[in-house]
Amino acid sequence: MLERALELAERGRGTTYPNPVVGAVVARGDEIVGEGWHQRKGGPHGEVVALEAAGEGARGATMYVTLEPCDHHGTTPPCVDAILAAGIAKVVVGVKDPTRDGIARLRESGVEVELVDLWAARVQNEAWLTWARLGRPFVTYKAAVTLDGRVTVPGKRWVSGEESRRLVHELRAASDAVAVGMGTVRSDNPRLDARDVEVVRQPRRLAFGRGPLPEGSELELLSGELEEELGRLAGQDVQSLLLESGPTLAAAFLEADLVDKLMLFVAPTISGEGPGLFASPPAMLTHQTARRVGDDVLLTAYVHEP
Amino acid sequence: MLERALELAERGRGTTYPNPVVGAVVARGDEIVGEGWHQRKGGPHGEVVALEAAGEGARGATMYVTLEPCDHHGTTPPCVDAILAAGIAKVVVGVKDPTRDGIARLRESGVEVELVDLWAARVQNEAWLTWARLGRPFVTYKAAVTLDGRVTVPGKRWVSGEESRRLVHELRAASDAVAVGMGTVRSDNPRLDARDVEVVRQPRRLAFGRGPLPEGSELELLSGELEEELGRLAGQDVQSLLLESGPTLAAAFLEADLVDKLMLFVAPTISGEGPGLFASPPAMLTHQTARRVGDDVLLTAYVHEP
Repeated sequence: MLERALELAERGRGTTYPNPVVGAVVARGDEIVGEGWHQRKGGPHGEVVALEAAGEGARGATMYVTLEPCDHHGTTPPCVDAILAAGIAKVVVGVKDPTRDGIARLRESGVEVELVDLWAARVQNEAWLTWARLGRPFVTYKAAVTLDGRVTVPGKRWVSGEESRRLVHELRAASDAVAVGMGTVRSDNPRLDARDVEVVRQPRRLAFGRGPLPEGSELELLSGELEEELGRLAGQDVQSLLLESGPTLAAAFLEADLVDKLMLFVAPTISGEGPGLFASPPAMLTHQTARRVGDDVLLTAYVHEP
Repeated sequence: MLERALELAERGRGTTYPNPVVGAVVARGDEIVGEGWHQRKGGPHGEVVALEAAGEGARGATMYVTLEPCDHHGTTPPCVDAILAAGIAKVVVGVKDPTRDGIARLRESGVEVELVDLWAARVQNEAWLTWARLGRPFVTYKAAVTLDGRVTVPGKRWVSGEESRRLVHELRAASDAVAVGMGTVRSDNPRLDARDVEVVRQPRRLAFGRGPLPEGSELELLSGELEEELGRLAGQDVQSLLLESGPTLAAAFLEADLVDKLMLFVAPTISGEGPGLFASPPAMLTHQTARRVGDDVLLTAYVHEP
């Protein structure tokens, strides 16, 4: 049932920002009596939609919800009140909301609550959870490397293949901001926009460093200390940042413990020379996965769990 | 049908050595009328077993065979003769045998032959094909690396996890020889045998370099030029060599173009320091795949197609 709620939540991807995506299912035993998801910012929360769909069927039923229900008045009334009013007997929660106490409120009111703490539920709102908990964007460092760990190949413009580069444009379209360092700006003068993919809104495009930017560059220059700049971006609702820099800025982010996820496109190539990925403090990562992207393999791993 | 023949061939894995594994299916349309596989060295070939199972059903039928049928008298008569005698109308071949002309002989005798050149059929006998064609073992370089491409992690004995290390013992058990360089011998004095896995026969255990070996080491020391030593090993039926050396010997093998396949166990770890994988000439690899092994990811890619 929680799997179904996760599916429903995905339908809100892109339109709920800056809210998280949330899905909810009301069930009596194996029978679903109501479903809902948060569709757009300002609209009703997934829990409320599911309860309305269930109607009287909600009394004594179980609600499965991907994220802890809210207990506060925002643009809509608290979901906890709606759950209590509907007479739900048990709530199964995918992941805790670090900013709310909906679970405590429900338990105080006699509702049984099971907090599953499902990895898939964390991943679904990984950017939002990190932004809400730490007051900075969730930072994904993306790089393309050869099998021998180099970030350049002699005589080749790109390390990774066409499918990988297309996927990078999809990652940009799904990020609130994209960033490089001044080294990349000076060598490539990149546009950093999402091209040839479906885009709801273009990411903010940032350059970290002293500047100056080349004439005509449309990047925003951020010259302050990394942590401060990230805090400022978070205050402007930048929840996710895709870092596409070279080894120097990546090492600075890692050194400051500001990278949450690594995405490495590994090309089936031996370079034999050139700079390596980055030099940084040792770290144990978790949840490493791999999948083929064209001729490349995309390795994903978490530095910090969301 | 060729897929089925590949499955049958695998049943001979380990017992046909130094022969390749071969599977054969005799079919009339969608109906299989005979199946066979090469079971052990000195025993009948897969084609002959399948033809015997098919009996009179073979007349006018199609044979699917993973490897080009032999046209010479070895310990058994030529399969080509048996195919012609059985009245097979068409033969579908998975991959060409670089040492035989069975396909030409069949065509001369009026049998239709389709050479599919299937990647899975090549991989199934990758060691044997390379040994037969080039007169040297098929060399797989295996290494464990961190996400930042280092082969050591400060304060840790192993880079990769327990499941990966167990898989390495399975790879050893499936190899005719395992090799390291004197650097590894001096630092680790490894036994290099296959432990805690099912073993038909232990691999030969080699050290390349000047020596001397530490007292009590059971490794064979090979101090000659790499290509010569590999030729000598091939003459002693060493078809597959698993190279488990450090970066120096690996670079020498790569420099001499003597590596056929890379297997990299990528651990979810940032090391931050220590030597990288190897420095070698640039190379484009093919058929890169990835799969999870415990917490690690195993990247496999071919330098030379078998």
